[in-house]
Order: sequence, then C-alpha cells, then structure tokens
Amino acid sequence: MEKINGGVCAPQGFKANGVHCGIRKNKTKRDLALIVSETRCAAACVYTQNLVKGAPILVTKKHVADGYAQAIVCNSGNANTCNADGEEIAEGMCGLVAQHTGIAAEDVVVASTGVIGRPLSLEPMAEHMEELAAGLGAYSTEAAQAIMTTDTVEKQIAYTFRLGGKPCTIGAIGKGVGMINPNMATMLVFVTTDAAISPAMLQKALSENVKDTFNMVSVDGDTSTNDMVCVLANGLAGNEPVTEAGKDYAAFRKALYAVMEYLCRCIAKDGEGATKLLECKVSGAKSKAVARTVAKSVIKSSLFKAAMFGADANWGRVLCAVGYAGADVDVMKVDVSFRSRAGELTVCQNGSGVPFSEEEAKRVLSEDEITVLIALNSGKAKATAWGCDLTYEYVRINGDYRT
Amino acid sequence: MEKINGGVCAPQGFKANGVHCGIRKNKTKRDLALIVSETRCAAACVYTQNLVKGAPILVTKKHVADGYAQAIVCNSGNANTCNADGEEIAEGMCGLVAQHTGIAAEDVVVASTGVIGRPLSLEPMAEHMEELAAGLGAYSTEAAQAIMTTDTVEKQIAYTFRLGGKPCTIGAIGKGVGMINPNMATMLVFVTTDAAISPAMLQKALSENVKDTFNMVSVDGDTSTNDMVCVLANGLAGNEPVTEAGKDYAAFRKALYAVMEYLCRCIAKDGEGATKLLECKVSGAKSKAVARTVAKSVIKSSLFKAAMFGADANWGRVLCAVGYAGADVDVMKVDVSFRSRAGELTVCQNGSGVPFSEEEAKRVLSEDEITVLIALNSGKAKATAWGCDLTYEYVRINGDYRT
Repeated sequence: MEKINGGVCAPQGFKANGVHCGIRKNKTKRDLALIVSETRCAAACVYTQNLVKGAPILVTKKHVADGYAQAIVCNSGNANTCNADGEEIAEGMCGLVAQHTGIAAEDVVVASTGVIGRPLSLEPMAEHMEELAAGLGAYSTEAAQAIMTTDTVEKQIAYTFRLGGKPCTIGAIGKGVGMINPNMATMLVFVTTDAAISPAMLQKALSENVKDTFNMVSVDGDTSTNDMVCVLANGLAGNEPVTEAGKDYAAFRKALYAVMEYLCRCIAKDGEGATKLLECKVSGAKSKAVARTVAKSVIKSSLFKAAMFGADANWGRVLCAVGYAGADVDVMKVDVSFRSRAGELTVCQNGSGVPFSEEEAKRVLSEDEITVLIALNSGKAKATAWGCDLTYEYVRINGDYRT
Repeated sequence: MEKINGGVCAPQGFKANGVHCGIRKNKTKRDLALIVSETRCAAACVYTQNLVKGAPILVTKKHVADGYAQAIVCNSGNANTCNADGEEIAEGMCGLVAQHTGIAAEDVVVASTGVIGRPLSLEPMAEHMEELAAGLGAYSTEAAQAIMTTDTVEKQIAYTFRLGGKPCTIGAIGKGVGMINPNMATMLVFVTTDAAISPAMLQKALSENVKDTFNMVSVDGDTSTNDMVCVLANGLAGNEPVTEAGKDYAAFRKALYAVMEYLCRCIAKDGEGATKLLECKVSGAKSKAVARTVAKSVIKSSLFKAAMFGADANWGRVLCAVGYAGADVDVMKVDVSFRSRAGELTVCQNGSGVPFSEEEAKRVLSEDEITVLIALNSGKAKATAWGCDLTYEYVRINGDYRT
C-alpha cells in the first residue's frame, strides 16, 4: 500500500468539485461539493445513531437502499435538520445534480452539515449547480474544502493497493470537527474506490472498520444529527469482483481501514480548538468491548483533556475515567504511561502512583501528539481511541457558533 | 419549613470546626474539618459508583455498616486515592479524632477531597487535631470552608421543620465543584439533623432523594472517586422516632430533600469556571427514567453549555442532545423554550424551529440562571437536572490543577 495524492479523485473514473454558492456568508468559503463517478457504483453507508436525524440522512438511506449510487452532493453552513421541509430540500438537491449531470436523482447521496434548525433554501444551490457540475475534474481539495465547517484544514487521503494482482486505488475526504463522539459514523466522510466489490461486502467492510475507527473518536461527547460515512466503489480497476470473505476482501478491508484511520487522526487533531492529538491505547483487557469502553471513557474526559492542554501529568484523572467507564476492570492491576516523540513515562503501576520527574513529564506532554497507554493486565484485548485536548479556543468557537 | 442560619451546627447537639493543618500550601486556606454530635447518631451514606474509590470511602463503609456514627472528619487538598497506604491513613484520621474527642474510631466517618494519587501524610493532621477538636463550636462556616477545593464560596444551609408536632432542625455543608457527574452521590455533602429516625429509614430517605437531586447534577461529566453524602441524625429533638413510612417519614424526607436540592443548585452554580446556573426541566416523558435521561443528556452537552456561556439560543444543540440521550422519545413532538428572570421564549415546536427574536433571546440568556424547558408531549413524567456553562475559566482551572 502506498500513499498518493488526489484524494477522492485518485481512483479511476471519479471527478469532484467544490464552489461557493452562498449558503455561507463568507464569499471566500466554498460551501457546496459534488463527487461523481463515470459509472454506477456499489454504495455503502453508516449513519449517526442520534434519534434526531438530518433530512439528508433520511433521503440518502432511501437512495442507497438498492446498494448502488453514482454521485455525492454535500453543502456546508446548514445541516438541513429540524426543518419541516427538510426532506423536500434534500430531494431537491439530488434533483439539481440529476439535472446537470444526467445521473438519476435516486443514485445521488446527499449530505448537509452546519447549523441545526435553520431553513435551507434550494435557491443558491440551483444557481450554482451548473457551474459546480461543469467544473468537475481532479478537484478533491476543492470538494474537501466545501464540506468544512469549523475545520481549520481540509482532510483528504488516497492509497494504492492490489486486489488479485490488479492495481486499485482508494481515496477519501472528510470533515469534523465538533459534535464528534463515538457512536456510529461521527462525521462526514466520503470514500471513493475503483475496486470492484459487491454492495454487501462493501457494507460489511465499512461496518466492521467503523467500530475501531470513527466510533473511537471523540472531540466533545456530542453525537451529531448529520453524521455519515459513504463509500462508492465503481469497479473500474477491473479486478475480479470481491463477493465473499477471503484474501481479496481482507486486502480491500485493510486499504479501507488505512483511509478511515488516517481521517480519524486528522479529525481528532483538528478537533474544535485543539492544540494536541490525544491517542488512548488500552491493552490487556478481558474483552474487546472492555478495551473500547475504557479507551473511549478516558478520551472523552473533560478533566483529562484539560490536563493534556496544560501538559499536566495528572494521571489520577486517567484512572478516575477508567473507574467510571462502566467496564469490568480490576483497578488494582492498572498501569498508566504517557508517550510522545519526546519519550515515555510510567506514572501509575497496579493502580497506585509511582514517582516520576515532573520536568520529564512536562517535556513528554508538551508535544502535539500524546499517547496515553493503559495496561489493564487482565486479558489480551486491545483498543485505541482518538481525541484532542480541551482548550480556551473550544469555548470561544462554541460560545457563539451561529453568529 | 423555614430557612435558618447555622449550617451543620443548627440542629441541637452538633458542633463543627475547620482549620488549616498544612495539607494545602496556601496558609490562608482551611483544609481539615470536623463535625461531632453529643450523642451517637443514626447514619446513612451514599457513595460514588466509580470503581476507583478513595480509601476514605472504604473505611467509612466499614464504620457505618452498623447504621451508626458520631463524627465526620474531612480533609481537602488530597483525595487519599490510589495510594498504597490509603486505608491505613484514613483509619489513622479516625484514630486521631477518637484520641481528641473520646468518640470511638469506628463511629467516625472519614472523607478526603483533592488530588488523586499523591501520598497523604498523617503528620499535619496529627499536629492540628487537638486544636481542631478543642475549637469545636458553632463553626459550620469554617468546616464548610475547610472542605472546599476549587469551590469559590462555602456552601451551607439549614431548615427547621416539624415531626409529630416537635420542632426539628436539619443542616448541611457541601462542596463541588469539578468531577461532578450524575452517577450516585457526586460530591461531598454532610448533613446533620436532630430528628429521631432509624438508620434504615434515614438510608431510605437519602437513597430516594439522591435520584432526583445529586444524581441530576453535572458539571463536567467526570464521576469523582471520592464522592459521598452522609447524614447523621442524633434524635435530640425528641420526636417520636421515625421507624416506618408514613406522615412523619414523608415530612422528614421533604426536609432532607430541601437541603439536598439547595446544595445541588449551589454546586451547579459554582461549577468550575461557571458564570451561569443551568437548569433543564423535562416534562411529558413516558417514564421517570426517560425524563431523567433526557434532562441529564442536555445538561451534560459541552456544546449546549458553551452556547449558554455565549448567550446563544442555539436550540439545535438541545434537540441534538435529546436525540442522542438513548431514551424513548418522539423527536417530532418535542417543544423547547428558554426561561430566565428576563422572560420566556419558545424556540422549537414539534421538533422544528419557530421564528423568534434574536434580541429577545440574547436578553433572556444573558441572565445568570437559565432554565431550558423541554416538553416531550408523550406522557406525564418529569425530571430536573442542574449544571453550568462551559467557560474559558473551566479550561484554565483544569489545565494545570496540580501546580
């Protein structure tokens, strides 16, 4: 597997674009993205588990129910959620795509991200869809920019890999970075690939991978109403189609995992106001479920996150979050260490503190990527969760997001 | 019922004191509190549900296992948690009380609050216990100050009430204000009363009340390792002892509830860095459990908390937190309003936004006590949760708490 440029346009047969259509006031900010495939694709999605679901989620579910799709349209600046006419507007967006690309409206995946509960007008999108469609090309960056909300950088990635000897490519764009919490697909991520794979196996790979990737990211503990991960596979690589578990499926799943894990780290690192990427690696758990629960509990702790912002080795907060995770843990067996580029430091063994140099701790924790290692010493299961520190900037961003 | 002064010393036969013994570096900060009763008391406690429990919790559980106690000792500045010699130190604190008051060590309730995982030395307490015990008197305020950590004000309350015609008194001190989350008794609260009541009925009243009071408070979503609510009842009011459910039990429970609810509001309002008390009132739920779950989900949302700090009527975040609460709710029936001294404003009906004046919203939300009213319109159950806004100051306090 090799990392390459090109994002969602790296795989054969995919084009993308992003424009400013006017949903957002700031004219320098793109707010409408389109991704299309030359041919119809196997499609798989995972969605937010919030009972309040954005209208686009409901429309997308209908459109991919048959396992196929050919385009993705997404606006930022407005979530099209809790609006009485939401589904009509989301269908209208798909209709506009159909009108200007010739792709059937029922083969369009639609997504929206931004403020909840503000009516979304079709008008600016109707005015700019022709320009958006006419400009389709190798513009993954523009599409990635157009789906950003409070993200500070666009997020995209692509890898090449092989299926049955044939070179294949997989690419993706994603956005965070608030209302991010581990409960199903917790952000917008659009993945494209030219691998040939059946809708069922594509869904299986996505659903399996999401448990250890997007479900393990938390920025602020809030599960958004609009989160979606969508994968389109157009089969243009010409590999023997993957239709069952086996070596090819495993290779595909691995490539998809690489894309998903990369975007997890990007989203956590760019979490609202974040100055640091936090990674929590739990080992020695009795079960995978225990490992995941403990890792998520620690990564979500406001007190732990604030301590990491202050480069304060307050490991008691780590142990505290292990203790209230609600998982089967013997706290008297727990070891805790902190690790970064600057070194590794053990701060707790068998549930009790061990002496360490505060100076050394400060050095380790002043890096911008920190791993907290939690050894439960009660089994063999492992899990990793990603998050970020809690900063003044998070409060500033969210104290007045709408205005 | 009448509110009176005197805190834990208002009921007959109780004395208290608080001194600086040297656990905290700041010499102007009291850090050791003692409350004693003239006579042995019925005792009831509720504790944190964190698997990591402070050593004092374990010792207190042993000491009140027989349903009786006569004194409470508590230090701040060190949680005596995750220390290998923790139980020995906690027993040592009880021993010091016994030595200087003549009360049996097994009748002493012990609590500690502060940093986790730092060894606690008995020495400063041994040096100052004589002074603490000799100075016992009507010093509820000093005791309340001595248990504060990041609290900005001491918290105490007392009420008079009647049981079977006899005047009784109940008083309490409490402390927050970080690591506060609804999962059992989520802070330190010590309640004294001269009412006569059996240990079993005292425990029943406390356990029932805690569900709608301390379990409904969240400052930061972290459940502390050391939380405890302890009630001592010495019976000196001379009422017919309460030994079964009935009118007197109901009257006692009501008085205890008033004390508990008052301290809930104090603790939420003084939440770390808070500028506002937030109250979430859920009505029309299918069950009490649904009402509680929804109220807690909203009060815990970082995004909602930050919006309230910014006086931003971002009700979409309220609906979002209703949706991910994990409760049986029909989101298409939900109404949301904001209320404060400045007025009341409906922002969402039947799950969709309704037009409102942003100016009016700013006026309502600029007050320092905000109520968000959530009508689920699906039943008759109600619940209230308390919390506070998320501010720059929370991040500052927790970015470097230990130093």
